Amino acid sequence: MRRLVLPRIASAALIIAALLLTAVGTGSAQPLLDDATLSQAASLRDEARSSELAYEILESLTTEVGPRMAGSSGDERAVAWAQAKFEQLGFDRVTLEPVTFPAWRRGRETARVVAPFPQPLVVTALGGSIATDGELHAPVAHFATLDELAAIPDGSLDGQIVFISNRMKRFRDGAGYGQAVAARSSGAVTAAKKGASAILIRSIGTDQDRLPHTGLMSYALDVRRIPAAALSNPDADLLANMVKRGRPVEVALELGSYWEGDYTSYNVIGDIVGSTQPEEYVLIGGHLDSWDLGTGAIDDGAGCAITMAAGALIGRLDAAPRRTIRVVLYANEEQGLHGARAYRQAHATEMDRHIIGAESDFGAGPIYRFSSRVKPSALGLIDQLTQVLSPLGVVRGDNNASGGPDLIPMRQAGMAVATLHQDGTDYFDYHHTANDTLDKVNPEHLAQNVAAYTVFAFLSAMAPGDFGTRLGLENADD
Amino acid sequence: MRRLVLPRIASAALIIAALLLTAVGTGSAQPLLDDATLSQAASLRDEARSSELAYEILESLTTEVGPRMAGSSGDERAVAWAQAKFEQLGFDRVTLEPVTFPAWRRGRETARVVAPFPQPLVVTALGGSIATDGELHAPVAHFATLDELAAIPDGSLDGQIVFISNRMKRFRDGAGYGQAVAARSSGAVTAAKKGASAILIRSIGTDQDRLPHTGLMSYALDVRRIPAAALSNPDADLLANMVKRGRPVEVALELGSYWEGDYTSYNVIGDIVGSTQPEEYVLIGGHLDSWDLGTGAIDDGAGCAITMAAGALIGRLDAAPRRTIRVVLYANEEQGLHGARAYRQAHATEMDRHIIGAESDFGAGPIYRFSSRVKPSALGLIDQLTQVLSPLGVVRGDNNASGGPDLIPMRQAGMAVATLHQDGTDYFDYHHTANDTLDKVNPEHLAQNVAAYTVFAFLSAMAPGDFGTRLGLENADD
Repeated sequence: MRRLVLPRIASAALIIAALLLTAVGTGSAQPLLDDATLSQAASLRDEARSSELAYEILESLTTEVGPRMAGSSGDERAVAWAQAKFEQLGFDRVTLEPVTFPAWRRGRETARVVAPFPQPLVVTALGGSIATDGELHAPVAHFATLDELAAIPDGSLDGQIVFISNRMKRFRDGAGYGQAVAARSSGAVTAAKKGASAILIRSIGTDQDRLPHTGLMSYALDVRRIPAAALSNPDADLLANMVKRGRPVEVALELGSYWEGDYTSYNVIGDIVGSTQPEEYVLIGGHLDSWDLGTGAIDDGAGCAITMAAGALIGRLDAAPRRTIRVVLYANEEQGLHGARAYRQAHATEMDRHIIGAESDFGAGPIYRFSSRVKPSALGLIDQLTQVLSPLGVVRGDNNASGGPDLIPMRQAGMAVATLHQDGTDYFDYHHTANDTLDKVNPEHLAQNVAAYTVFAFLSAMAPGDFGTRLGLENADD
Repeated sequence: MRRLVLPRIASAALIIAALLLTAVGTGSAQPLLDDATLSQAASLRDEARSSELAYEILESLTTEVGPRMAGSSGDERAVAWAQAKFEQLGFDRVTLEPVTFPAWRRGRETARVVAPFPQPLVVTALGGSIATDGELHAPVAHFATLDELAAIPDGSLDGQIVFISNRMKRFRDGAGYGQAVAARSSGAVTAAKKGASAILIRSIGTDQDRLPHTGLMSYALDVRRIPAAALSNPDADLLANMVKRGRPVEVALELGSYWEGDYTSYNVIGDIVGSTQPEEYVLIGGHLDSWDLGTGAIDDGAGCAITMAAGALIGRLDAAPRRTIRVVLYANEEQGLHGARAYRQAHATEMDRHIIGAESDFGAGPIYRFSSRVKPSALGLIDQLTQVLSPLGVVRGDNNASGGPDLIPMRQAGMAVATLHQDGTDYFDYHHTANDTLDKVNPEHLAQNVAAYTVFAFLSAMAPGDFGTRLGLENADD
């Protein structure tokens, strides 16, 4: 089939812009899905929408496994659960692929104001943080933002504990996360350069619950490592109110977290094997690991349950779709896309046979938009998919989809992706906290997600052409 | 002045019913408040409604003291704070009255499911619970309600851990609390009779946060004491989901709480001394102690702040009202009205000079109803108060007010009381949890409360007659 030849452009952003511009133009016509297939997809959609299967899967995962931080005993139990569940759901083939990564352990974690107003503070170590050496006592140096901290001279903090109080804003698409998360991911490096002994950040979250948000932080090879923790939003308010009185505020912080060697977990893969092109894959899934504080219902039990249910419902059809529908439950997304990278590596030689992918990793809110990242000539197919999604309240997005975090390595390898955008208005109320529990999931919203993924996966597996397979690559002959 | 003679009726309920019936009839006319006084009250109300004073007081208490469980170091700091704050607010007289009670300490508290699905559970000891002997391992015996537990034969549980899963319902007036709280207050006694080794209850709360609700529990002298704790609502859901699979569920519970001798705290009293009847008191206030998990913003920092601000605003008038306005911050309400009982005892001989009282102890939601418990001939005065409260959105309630928990001893001594009913729709989302923090308080709602208490206290202090002083007492010559 005719493939799009992309110009040599170094910047990925420019490539995407070029794709978008091209998309507006007239790509070569590509065969479309036939009416019988579209009608079958609509039936699947309606069946999925009234199915409780995803909720049952999610209840099973959160109840029978619960927390499953990468490298923990919960991780091991989650892998066993996933393998058994795929089999129980009637997937044709269930595969475990090893993923090795360093294991991080959470230890004891306490914080308190020592002076002038002794009070306990609720904190949690950021993922990857080193421990304090016993209980660290130091005055607090408050900064409203990471930028404010970055602006002071290096070495000027003299052992103080940096406190960054910027608050994440609430948006339906979660845009506030990207705006705020640098304080978490890179704050420790900046604070260490300034001479700090530790860093406390306001949780990257939109709630007002006294439950801190964990999440990955990073060190730099050439910068001293310092312990890093998040305060719950009410605790950050409290500390800010103390600080603004103008008197020195001394805090005691104890973290017991540490890295402990390597651990091997698994990507757990369930396939509904295609009838005529079984070696071509439509890739859906979520990540199996969670943080340790909650039961990982929204992050990302929901994504696992939605895509397992979608695959299972398609698998119950009398005839399998043409291509294989592959549901991947990725290992260790939270600590750096370890499972996703391992998947790409393990399947490097067959990336061209990964036709399109979408990951569900944004909770269980209803899907309201469908965006793609496909070759222009496949946009007609995307329009057809959108039509079948439309009764679910889903509108067409742009052709600049990210596909989800675990699809980054595959997208970088040129795979076409789609994003089924979920309403994340409440997502960051619970994200990475103990409050990430089953009750936060609305069963009807979850079923709407399954319906959308069922349509996406089934029609992609039945599409008469591909969606582009070396998108965005330099010298792509696609 | 003419006093109402009550008939000899043993039951307090019948007395109240009689009062209500009488109230409908024509009580003797009693002098009413004059227009100038009502107008002054309306000005005070409008000033209070736009005042930030209560919020400033509450921010000060929660920031500078925070948790102040009876008998803790926070209790001691709260007393010092309250004394200083009354003085700073210009109260004419500040008095500390000692209150002695046994001190309860919270220790380490952990719980986890051991089998079949190992998971941590979030628990907190109920106030007053004894410790476990190390980590207690036992199977769970689930009961949907306390009544279900009560119905089984004594001695039939053989060391199991009772789990009661009934869920509190949400109402504006908090009526769900009374329906649900017996599982907390008396569940340990019932469970021990059945042979249980411990009891876990679903938190008495309306939220879905992974923050358990503490609160007082009691033992019976002749029944074996067993440890008692509350699971957060999500944890109770989780445990119930495990139990309903029909396999035995084993839990490990460790509580380190204990009683430690006697502690003397203080009722802290601020008076705005009356101009012409300084030895007659209008009694408003809240309780100074809180539970230890949060900063006690809504329970009962709000009540302290509302009534301190109301007193302070009245104290700034050019002329003091006729009677003394007394703001009492009661010690140790949470563990059994210790401060309230001590107040009644200390002032037993002058109870007749306590003209009327109201306690604010239901958070910071807006006041929507004003109910009274006064002699029928004073209902005209209550109508006048209601008229001035009306622009705040307050409607007239019945004449069967409780007055608030700390006024129970005074009401039992015959004091007239009023209740300024607050909207408590959200109150039990945060009540007795770590989530009871300043951010849960809406400053405008708080100011509306101050406005209402200002009207109530000022007009009661200016009323030309009393409200009845030996209400409900047998042989009352009132």
